[in-house]
Amino acid sequence: MSEQHSYSLNSKKVEAATDEWLARRGVTRDKIAELVHFLQKDYFPNLTVEECIHHVNAVLSKREVQNAVLTGIQLDLLAEEGKLLEPLQEMIFNDEGLYGCDEVLALSIVNVYGSIGFTNFGYIDKLKPGILKKLNDRSDGEIHTFLDDIVGAIAASAASRIAHRKQAERENNTNLPLD
Amino acid sequence: MSEQHSYSLNSKKVEAATDEWLARRGVTRDKIAELVHFLQKDYFPNLTVEECIHHVNAVLSKREVQNAVLTGIQLDLLAEEGKLLEPLQEMIFNDEGLYGCDEVLALSIVNVYGSIGFTNFGYIDKLKPGILKKLNDRSDGEIHTFLDDIVGAIAASAASRIAHRKQAERENNTNLPLD
Amino acid sequence: MSEQHSYSLNSKKVEAATDEWLARRGVTRDKIAELVHFLQKDYFPNLTVEECIHHVNAVLSKREVQNAVLTGIQLDLLAEEGKLLEPLQEMIFNDEGLYGCDEVLALSIVNVYGSIGFTNFGYIDKLKPGILKKLNDRSDGEIHTFLDDIVGAIAASAASRIAHRKQAERENNTNLPLD
Amino acid sequence: MSEQHSYSLNSKKVEAATDEWLARRGVTRDKIAELVHFLQKDYFPNLTVEECIHHVNAVLSKREVQNAVLTGIQLDLLAEEGKLLEPLQEMIFNDEGLYGCDEVLALSIVNVYGSIGFTNFGYIDKLKPGILKKLNDRSDGEIHTFLDDIVGAIAASAASRIAHRKQAERENNTNLPLD
Repeated sequence: MSEQHSYSLNSKKVEAATDEWLARRGVTRDKIAELVHFLQKDYFPNLTVEECIHHVNAVLSKREVQNAVLTGIQLDLLAEEGKLLEPLQEMIFNDEGLYGCDEVLALSIVNVYGSIGFTNFGYIDKLKPGILKKLNDRSDGEIHTFLDDIVGAIAASAASRIAHRKQAERENNTNLPLD
Repeated sequence: MSEQHSYSLNSKKVEAATDEWLARRGVTRDKIAELVHFLQKDYFPNLTVEECIHHVNAVLSKREVQNAVLTGIQLDLLAEEGKLLEPLQEMIFNDEGLYGCDEVLALSIVNVYGSIGFTNFGYIDKLKPGILKKLNDRSDGEIHTFLDDIVGAIAASAASRIAHRKQAERENNTNLPLD
Repeated sequence: MSEQHSYSLNSKKVEAATDEWLARRGVTRDKIAELVHFLQKDYFPNLTVEECIHHVNAVLSKREVQNAVLTGIQLDLLAEEGKLLEPLQEMIFNDEGLYGCDEVLALSIVNVYGSIGFTNFGYIDKLKPGILKKLNDRSDGEIHTFLDDIVGAIAASAASRIAHRKQAERENNTNLPLD
Repeated sequence: MSEQHSYSLNSKKVEAATDEWLARRGVTRDKIAELVHFLQKDYFPNLTVEECIHHVNAVLSKREVQNAVLTGIQLDLLAEEGKLLEPLQEMIFNDEGLYGCDEVLALSIVNVYGSIGFTNFGYIDKLKPGILKKLNDRSDGEIHTFLDDIVGAIAASAASRIAHRKQAERENNTNLPLD
C-alpha cells in the first residue's frame, strides 16, 4: 500500500466480494465454523457450531483478512486456468513443496488475532479435517493451493478469538474475583 | 505448499525466471545494491556498491525470496493489464491504502535474514530513494504495487546480511579477543 | 501458551500493570500519541493529538500488546540492574547490533493492526522522534532496548488504526457512493 | 537492536552459551533431532537421526536462533525462581492461555527457514512428542513455557532445511533434467 494515494475502495464492496468468491470456491461460513469447532470442542465442551459461525463472521469482517482471501483465490483461479507465467504456474498448480507464499498470506490472517493461533493453524493444516480435505482433493480439477491455507488460518483465528472472549466472559460472570 | 506432493521444480529454472522478470520490470541488481549502500554507508564508510551487489546476489539466491518476487511481479503485471477480478483489480492497480498483501510478501523476504532488517525496510519504504522512486512513479503506466515493497525488502535483507558478515570479519581479523 | 492449562489471569490486572509499568519507565499515552500525530499529520491535516490518544488507548487495550509491553519492560529492567545471565546481559544492556528479539516482540504488536503498519514502524524506529529519542539516550543510566521498539510499534499500530477508521468515516459520511 | 552502537559480542561466546543453556535445561541436539525425524520420516524414509542432527546444528548456528534460545530460557529460569514482576510472573509460570510471547519468539526462529515450516511447528506444538512432552510436564517443578515452543521451532526449521536440501540433492544427482 502507499499512503501517498488518497484512493480507497468502498469496504462493503470488498466484504461482499470476499463472501461471493468464497462461496464460488465451495467454502461456506458453516464449513469454516466446523473447523473451529473441531479445534476448540475439547477446551469448551458447550461450544456450538452456531457460536463458532459468529466468530468466523468477526474474522471475515476484517479488511486484512478479506485482502488475503481475494488475493489467494485470484491466484488459485489463474493457476486453474493455466494463465500464470512459468515457472509460477507450475509451482502454484502443483502446490509445490518449496513454494511458501500461500503460508505467508495465511499467517497474515492468523497474526491479526495474535500468536496464540499459530499452533492451531499448523495443526489443522497438517490434519486437513472437513472442508480442508475437500480443498486438497485435486481429483476434481480445482486448484486450492492458497485457499486451503487461508481457510485453515481463518479457522485458527476464530479459535483464538474464542479463547479471548471466553476469558472475558469468565471474568464478567463471576462475583468472586479471579485473583 | 503441501508435503503430500513429491512434485518439485528445478531450482535453476526458478532462479533464472527471477532474474529475467526483475530485468523486464526495470530492476537490476545494481539498482538494488545502490539502495543497500544508501542504507549502510553511514555505518560502514568503506562499503562499496560492488560489495553490496555480492550481498544482493546472496539474498536473491534464496528460494523463499524468488517465490515472493515471482508472485509479486505476476500480480503487478495482471493489474497493469486489467486482468484481475474486481475489486482486487482496483485495489492493486491503485496501490490502495488498506491493501497490505504487498507488505506481507515483502516481510517474508525480510524475515529470512532476521528481525534486524525490519527498521531498514520501513525506512526505505517511506523515503523511496533511487529505483524505489521510479517504481512508484505511475506516470509511465506501469504498476509496481508489489515490486516496490519487494525491492525494498531485498535491500533491507542485504543490509542485515552485511551487518552479520561485518561482525564475523571483525572477529576473525583481530588478534585480541573482543571479550 | 498452552491450552492444556485452564489457569488464566484477570484481564484488568494485566491492563493496569501495563499502564503502571509504562508510566514508571517515563512513557505516557500522550507521548505515544505525539508519535502517532507525527506519523499521520501529513495524511490527515485535521488530526488532533487528542484523537491520537483515543487510538493509542485502543491499541493498549489489546492483551497481545500488553503481554509484549510487560515482557519487554521486564527484560529492560533486569538488564539495567545487571541481573540477566551473560552473554544476554551484555547484549540487551548494550542494545547489541545483532540482537533482534526486541524487534520481534515489537512486530507482534504491529501485526495486530495488519501489515500496513510495518512502514511506519521502521520509519519511526530510524528517525527516533519525541519520546523515542529520550528512550535511546543512555546518559541517564536507563536501559530501554525493548521499550524503545515497543513504543514505536504501538504508535505505528495506532496509525494503522487511524487509516482504517478514517476510511470507514469517509464511507459513512458521504451520500454519494464512493464507487 | 540499534545500529548507533558499535558494540558487539563475540559470536563464539553466544554460540557456546546457547549450547550450555540448552544442556542445563535438559535439551540435547539428539533430542531435537528426534523431533525432526518424527516430522520428516514419512516424506524421506531413508532419513536418519544422525542426518537430522546435522540440520539441527545448522539451525543452531544462526545468531537469530541463539538470541531467541537465550532470551526464552532466561525468562523461564526467572519464572521458575519467582523473580519476575507480577502479573508477568504468574502468566509465564502458569503458561497462561492468552500469553503468546513464547510463540512470537518461536516464530522468529521458524521464519529464518521460511514459511514452509509453520505447519510443522504448529503440528508438533500440539502433539508434543518426545522431549516436548517432558518439557511440558510440570511435575518436576521446572518451567519451560518458552523453551517448549522454541525447541519445537528449531525442529520445524531443521525440517524445512531438509526439504530444501533434499530438493537440491535430487537436482544434482540426476542426469536427466527434471524439467
